[in-house]
Amino acid sequence: MLKNDQLDQWDRDNFFHPSTHLAQHARGDSPSRVIKTANGVHIEDRDGNQLLDAFAGLYCVNVGYGRQDIAEAIAAQAKELAYYHSYVGHGTEASITLSKMILDRAPSNMSKVYFGLGGSDANETNVKLIWYYNNILGRHEKKKIISRWRGYHGSGLVTGSLTGLELFHKKFDLPLAQVVHTEAPYYFRRDDLSQTEEQFVAHCVAELEALIEREGADTIAAFIGEPVLGTGGIVPPPAGYWAAIQAVLKKHDILLVADEVVTGFGRLGTMFGSDHYGIEADIITIAKGLTSAYAPLSGSIVSDKVWKVLEQGTDENGPIGHGWTYSAHPIGAAAGVANLKLIDELDLVTNAGEVGAYLNKTMTEALGSHPNVGDIRGEGMLCAVEFVKDKDSRTFFDAADKIGPQISATLLAQDKVIARAMPQGDILGFAPPFCLTKAEADTVVAATAAAVKTVLG
Amino acid sequence: MLKNDQLDQWDRDNFFHPSTHLAQHARGDSPSRVIKTANGVHIEDRDGNQLLDAFAGLYCVNVGYGRQDIAEAIAAQAKELAYYHSYVGHGTEASITLSKMILDRAPSNMSKVYFGLGGSDANETNVKLIWYYNNILGRHEKKKIISRWRGYHGSGLVTGSLTGLELFHKKFDLPLAQVVHTEAPYYFRRDDLSQTEEQFVAHCVAELEALIEREGADTIAAFIGEPVLGTGGIVPPPAGYWAAIQAVLKKHDILLVADEVVTGFGRLGTMFGSDHYGIEADIITIAKGLTSAYAPLSGSIVSDKVWKVLEQGTDENGPIGHGWTYSAHPIGAAAGVANLKLIDELDLVTNAGEVGAYLNKTMTEALGSHPNVGDIRGEGMLCAVEFVKDKDSRTFFDAADKIGPQISATLLAQDKVIARAMPQGDILGFAPPFCLTKAEADTVVAATAAAVKTVLG
Repeated sequence: MLKNDQLDQWDRDNFFHPSTHLAQHARGDSPSRVIKTANGVHIEDRDGNQLLDAFAGLYCVNVGYGRQDIAEAIAAQAKELAYYHSYVGHGTEASITLSKMILDRAPSNMSKVYFGLGGSDANETNVKLIWYYNNILGRHEKKKIISRWRGYHGSGLVTGSLTGLELFHKKFDLPLAQVVHTEAPYYFRRDDLSQTEEQFVAHCVAELEALIEREGADTIAAFIGEPVLGTGGIVPPPAGYWAAIQAVLKKHDILLVADEVVTGFGRLGTMFGSDHYGIEADIITIAKGLTSAYAPLSGSIVSDKVWKVLEQGTDENGPIGHGWTYSAHPIGAAAGVANLKLIDELDLVTNAGEVGAYLNKTMTEALGSHPNVGDIRGEGMLCAVEFVKDKDSRTFFDAADKIGPQISATLLAQDKVIARAMPQGDILGFAPPFCLTKAEADTVVAATAAAVKTVLG
Repeated sequence: MLKNDQLDQWDRDNFFHPSTHLAQHARGDSPSRVIKTANGVHIEDRDGNQLLDAFAGLYCVNVGYGRQDIAEAIAAQAKELAYYHSYVGHGTEASITLSKMILDRAPSNMSKVYFGLGGSDANETNVKLIWYYNNILGRHEKKKIISRWRGYHGSGLVTGSLTGLELFHKKFDLPLAQVVHTEAPYYFRRDDLSQTEEQFVAHCVAELEALIEREGADTIAAFIGEPVLGTGGIVPPPAGYWAAIQAVLKKHDILLVADEVVTGFGRLGTMFGSDHYGIEADIITIAKGLTSAYAPLSGSIVSDKVWKVLEQGTDENGPIGHGWTYSAHPIGAAAGVANLKLIDELDLVTNAGEVGAYLNKTMTEALGSHPNVGDIRGEGMLCAVEFVKDKDSRTFFDAADKIGPQISATLLAQDKVIARAMPQGDILGFAPPFCLTKAEADTVVAATAAAVKTVLG
C-alpha cells in the first residue's frame, strides 16, 4: 500500500475525474476519497470508513459488492483468454453464452445483441443503427431522434444531446441539431397543478404530437426514453403514459428505443422495465445491471423488425461499418454470465421488488408529512425524495441554496450513508443494490430522516 | 465446455458481431471462429487450431497473450474491489497509480488524464473538451475539427466522422458537419507521381492551408491525426510532415490532437509516436496499448495549456458535465498498471523497435521485387505490403477483385498466420505483439511470401 499522502498528491496532480470541479480538486479545496474494498451494500475507504452505499455506485452494482463468484469468473477468463476481438464473426464461449442469456431474458420480439462498453456508446450505436435502418428503407430524411427533457442517455456529443439536462449541455454546444426534446413525464413538476395524472398524460401526448407535427413525421426516426426517468430525478411515469406514447409513435412509424441502462436486469422488480410498463421497444439499451459493473459491458438489443433491415443492408452493402475494439470483451462477457446467473440463483429481482417496495413505504412513513418534502416516489429498488420550500404552493427552493447536496452531504457525514443529490432540483435519490435487507432499508430511512431534520428542521 | 454445434447456433441466433456481414453470418454462409485460449503470439480456437496472430488482436495485445502477471492483477482487483466510480474526486489505488504512470511516460507538457473505455469514446471526450475549451475562451465559432482522409479515430457518430474511410461513413450519414477532411499523408498514393517526398509534404501543407482559408481559421478548433495512419493503410508520414503541419496549426491557433491509440506505449519503438516524430500535441488519445487489451481502458491526456482553461471553466461554471460510469474502472486500471510495468520489465519497447525493423527488412527482402508489390512500409512493430496490378504505372487492382482479402485468407488457410486486409485498398497489414521474436518474424515473412505466390504467382 502506498502512503496516503503520496496517493493524494498523485491524484490531484494527474487524475482528471469525471463530473468533478476540476480546479477545486487540483487545488485540494475539495475532499478526495480512495476506495479500498467493499462487501454487500458497504464500501470501505483507505481511512477505514465504512459507508452504506444506497446508490450502488452509480446505480450499477446491482448484485452488491464483493461477489466472489463474479470475481472468480473474471479471474478465470483473464487467465485463459483476456482478449480476442469479435469482429467478422469471432467470439468466445463467454460472449456467445451471454448473448443467448440476454435474449432469453429480453422481450420476445428481440433478436440480437451488439455489445459495447457503457451506456453512452450503446446509445451511440443505436443512433447509428437507426440512421442506417432508415437509409436502407430509403427514408433518407427520417433521421431526427426525439428525447425527453430530463432524460439521461449518455455523456457523448450525440448521446449528451439525447440527455435532456442542462449540466450536460452547457458550454458543450449541445444538443446537436439531430435531437429534439419533448415534455418530461414528471407529474410532480407539471406546470398546471390542477391537472390529474390522466390529464397530464394527455398533455404529454399533445406535446409529442405537436412536436411531430412541427418537425414533420417524415423527419423523425425514433423516440428514446427510460422506463423510469433516472438521473433526471428518478421519476416513474404517470399511469397510462407508455401506452399513450406508443400509440403516437406507432401512428407515425417512429421507432422506440427503451433505454434500460438503469432498469434492465431487475431494478424495477421485473427483468426489464419494458416488461413492467408494457413497452414494446424496437431497440433496448443495456449496461450497468448487465455486469453489475464488475467489468465494463453494455449492449444494444435489436428487435426482429430492425434486424431484418440490418441484414438487408449488409446484403446490399457488405459488412457493417461499425465496431469497437472491445465489443464483447471476454472479461466483460465472463462477468455478465456470472452476474446474470447470480441474479437468478439469489432471486435478486424478486428481492429488488419486495425490499424496494418496503424502502419506498418506510421512506414515505418517515418523511411524507415533513413540510419540506414535496414528493416521495419510486418503483422497485428506486426511490426519490424531492424537497420544496412550500408544500401547498409547490414552491421550490432556490437552486443556489443547494438543499439537495446539503442533505446528501449531511447523510454521509452523520450516518455514513450514500444517497445521491440528483443534478436538476433538490432531489435525493436512492438506488441500493438488490441485496438490500429490510434492516438495511431501515438504517437508510432513519439516517435520511435524521439528515433532513438536521438541514431543514 | 458447451457443445460446439450448440455454441455455433447460439452465436448465429443471438450475437450481433461488429464489422461483420450480418446476413451471411446469421444464415451460416460465413465461418465463425470461437477463440478458446492464447499464449505469446499464438491464439487457439475451440477446434484446436493454433494461429500466429501477426495483428495482435486489433493491434492491441501489445505485450502478447497469456501474461499471467496481468491476469493476476485483474483477479486481485476483482476480488478486492471490482468497481467504484471515479466521479467527484473518487479514486482507487490502481486508478491513481496509473494516472501517475501515464503522466510519467507522456511528453512533458502533458498534465492530466481522463479515463474512458475505448479509443472512440476517448476521441469523443476530446471533441467535447475542445468545444468547452473554446467556449471558455469566448471563441464560440472556433469549433470545427480537421481530420485527414484515411485517418481512423473511432466508429461513433462524431468519431466516425473524424474517421476518413468510406466504409465508416456509407449509409450512416457521416461525416457530420462539424468535421472537415484534408489530404492523407500517403506518399505512395500521391496523385502526382513525379513529386518527391518533400514536394508531397509541401502539397499536404498547401491543402491544409487552403482548407483553413476556405473555412476560416476562426472556425477551426483542432486538427486530429495518428502519428502513423493506422486502419487507413498503415502509412508512416513522409519525412518532415509533422513539423510542417505543426507550423501551420500554430500559426492559426489550432489545437493538435495526437491519436496514439495504436502508437501509444511503444509500438513505434518509442513510448509515444509523438516522441518519435517530434509532435507537440495539446491532447493525446490513448487506448489499446494502455492495457494491451486485457481490460477495456482508454484515456485523454490533456496538456497544461488545455488543463488551465478547463480549471478556469469549472471555477466559472461548476463541475464539468462529462462522465462515463466506467471511467477509471478498477479492473482496467489494475490491468493498466500491470501492463505498463511488464512493458518496462521486459523492455518491450526496445524489442518492438528492433524486431519491428527486422520484420520490415526481411519483408522487403522477400517481397520487394515482386511485380505486384507496389510498396512495403512500416515503422517499429507496424508493417504493410501494398499490392498493385502494375508497378511501373502504379495501377491498382479493381477493388472487386479483393486481392488484399484473398491474400489474407490464403495466409490464414495455408500457414495459419493472421494479417489484416486493410479496408481501403489491397493492403496487408501486420502489427504483431511486441514480444515477437526474429524466428517468429521469419515465419510471418515466409508465410506471407507463400500466400502472395499462391494468389498472384
